[in-house]
Amino acid sequence: MRQFIVLGHDAPTTAEFPLDDLSGAGRLDILCRCVGAAVFLSHGIREHVRMHLVVSDEYTIRFDSDTLRRLYPDERTIAARIRDALDQREDAIGHLPAEVSPGMALYRFGFEATLDAVADEGTVVQLHADGTPLPAASPPSDPVFVLSDHTDFTDREAELLSEQADQRLRVGPETLHADQTITVAHNWLDTAGYSEY
Amino acid sequence: MRQFIVLGHDAPTTAEFPLDDLSGAGRLDILCRCVGAAVFLSHGIREHVRMHLVVSDEYTIRFDSDTLRRLYPDERTIAARIRDALDQREDAIGHLPAEVSPGMALYRFGFEATLDAVADEGTVVQLHADGTPLPAASPPSDPVFVLSDHTDFTDREAELLSEQADQRLRVGPETLHADQTITVAHNWLDTAGYSEY
Repeated sequence: MRQFIVLGHDAPTTAEFPLDDLSGAGRLDILCRCVGAAVFLSHGIREHVRMHLVVSDEYTIRFDSDTLRRLYPDERTIAARIRDALDQREDAIGHLPAEVSPGMALYRFGFEATLDAVADEGTVVQLHADGTPLPAASPPSDPVFVLSDHTDFTDREAELLSEQADQRLRVGPETLHADQTITVAHNWLDTAGYSEY
Repeated sequence: MRQFIVLGHDAPTTAEFPLDDLSGAGRLDILCRCVGAAVFLSHGIREHVRMHLVVSDEYTIRFDSDTLRRLYPDERTIAARIRDALDQREDAIGHLPAEVSPGMALYRFGFEATLDAVADEGTVVQLHADGTPLPAASPPSDPVFVLSDHTDFTDREAELLSEQADQRLRVGPETLHADQTITVAHNWLDTAGYSEY
């Protein structure tokens, strides 16, 4: 299982955002591309991927690739499904999520609760400018990659992450968008350990 | 200089497409993500990148990262700029492009003319399922990567490409979207040859 936690610091917490200006809706365009990068291959969906989209530290939308339906890779469709999820936020109570559609659920969890819930399920990987370069690192088992959107982790988030992180990695000398980082991480795992593939 | 040629087989050749359904407009969503993956870093634009978007083998829109202005990474904004370019197609005559805005020009070139124009500028790289895995290959100088959209190269395109290709590479065991492939290729070039970066 590969998991990704993406922090959308400015993402809308209600369904009242326009699909015509995703960039203006807390850079939802980046977050939608992150969902797409995490779950989609050309002409298919990856197996065993979970994507946790943390919405302004109030909700977390979980995408489970193995059961996912009705999702397509374009930003607008993914944003429309995020809107569907936020529309059901009143049904998420305590630890019980709102079941949005197959493979999509919305939890009333901020970052800390989401990280706590998945930290024991694998190797928490902090992507960091001072981390080990990917080619020099061994691929972890059941990695949980934690990424931020277009803004940095807050001090509190960085602290929580440092407490839970098992590994610190960096993807390269350039600072990539979060969705680009997810694509590179997938490819690293796809190809690591194979001289021929 | 890194160059990418992306073939949009079903892309609209006029500006009469709606921005609300890019997937329905010849999978323009994929093509927009390709442009974004080619030129954008987080909080910046890459240096020395040229992206050639071949539109239904009739026009080619060229994005030159070193002079590019008024472009943002979300699909809708990129699609709107593609519409601006197609709106000026009558001004592209022979080898003279329509200058759309800084860093963007539209040529009345199909794939063959575009490939001919750039083939001598670098190493033409065919991305192919039977190619050499990236980690086993040496990074070419001034690579020109040629990719197709959601459909395969036609027989004629594959033939043209085989004639011009200097190197055949594959990105991994999974079949990625074209934009994901561009991201992986960039990261490979960013990191190749560096044990530390």
